[in-house]
Amino acid sequence: MNNFSSKLLETAVNELAKLPGIGRKTSVRLALHLLRQNNAEVEALGHALIKMRNEISFCRICFNVSDTELCDICNNPGRDAGLVCVVEDVRDVMAIENTSQFKGQYHVLGGVISPMDGVGPGDLNIEPLISRIQKGGVKEVIMALSPTMEGDTTNFYIYKRLKNLKVLITTIARGVSIGDNLEFTDEITLGRSITNRLPYETTFNR
Amino acid sequence: MNNFSSKLLETAVNELAKLPGIGRKTSVRLALHLLRQNNAEVEALGHALIKMRNEISFCRICFNVSDTELCDICNNPGRDAGLVCVVEDVRDVMAIENTSQFKGQYHVLGGVISPMDGVGPGDLNIEPLISRIQKGGVKEVIMALSPTMEGDTTNFYIYKRLKNLKVLITTIARGVSIGDNLEFTDEITLGRSITNRLPYETTFNR
Repeated sequence: MNNFSSKLLETAVNELAKLPGIGRKTSVRLALHLLRQNNAEVEALGHALIKMRNEISFCRICFNVSDTELCDICNNPGRDAGLVCVVEDVRDVMAIENTSQFKGQYHVLGGVISPMDGVGPGDLNIEPLISRIQKGGVKEVIMALSPTMEGDTTNFYIYKRLKNLKVLITTIARGVSIGDNLEFTDEITLGRSITNRLPYETTFNR
Repeated sequence: MNNFSSKLLETAVNELAKLPGIGRKTSVRLALHLLRQNNAEVEALGHALIKMRNEISFCRICFNVSDTELCDICNNPGRDAGLVCVVEDVRDVMAIENTSQFKGQYHVLGGVISPMDGVGPGDLNIEPLISRIQKGGVKEVIMALSPTMEGDTTNFYIYKRLKNLKVLITTIARGVSIGDNLEFTDEITLGRSITNRLPYETTFNR
């Protein structure tokens, strides 16, 4: 796929192919699709991407993406500022918000510690988290990172940094997913869900 | 995935999700990827798409995408203007050019006849093909459409329109793919490859 009859098409294909998960064939298909759309539609796409990148900012408290200096969540007096949920990125905020189960605030790390990918603690919003806790007012930090090696490493690093501050550190429960079949649950998850068993009454009205 | 904390992010995600084969989750992933890139890189992508759509033109002879009035192929005196290969779209031109086996010119239909998708002969560049042949100078038209129902319908329609003009109409050979296992070749392909068998000598030096 290298015989482009048009430099304009070739440039567009090359740019699309830089996106993660978009290969060469897909980017040719996308470019030809865009060629069949109205000029206005392609401009809407192009300008939306550029405008997003140029104008977006991050909430100065929680580092969630936001169009204003404070995000809607940090700015909402109905949310409990004493409860901070630490997540990896914006998608996790959206996922937790969709559950409608959390009424506190967030802290977006912007990634997890991953030496293999060259991501150290200094690349993440960990220092701002420490000073946010040091300022006082936060009673509980809920660690809500993915239960992967990188997530657990990050959990442990943050735990060590926070444990001498006067704040309760919790993690989201790991256990058998609702609707899952015990038979097909991996041993580590099943083992932990037995170790961390709960009084049956606490599962009422959830 | 509806709790966007930023209108800018939401707009970008919605625009990306309009692309074919890009779902909601993928478009969030792509938008967050772009947020992590430099402004300049996102601008390069956005402007490449807009510039391509606004400035691209189609060759006035073969309807291939082109930055100029005549595409590089139609403009090349080394290519045989008496030999015209009819293809569905630009990707087919690229695929055939990659083989380096064809030294004639192309005619890009811009699709195939597909009543199910509301595509009739009038939506394709068929009339310009007829007048191109009527002008004279073209000795052979090679039909190189995909061997699908729509491709075969289009082949037949064009054949009927061209058969009274003084031009040879051929189609690309259909047969067993090189490297394919006879055992796994479908019956129709295998049957046709027997019907259209070739003298063994003609396969030398290919």
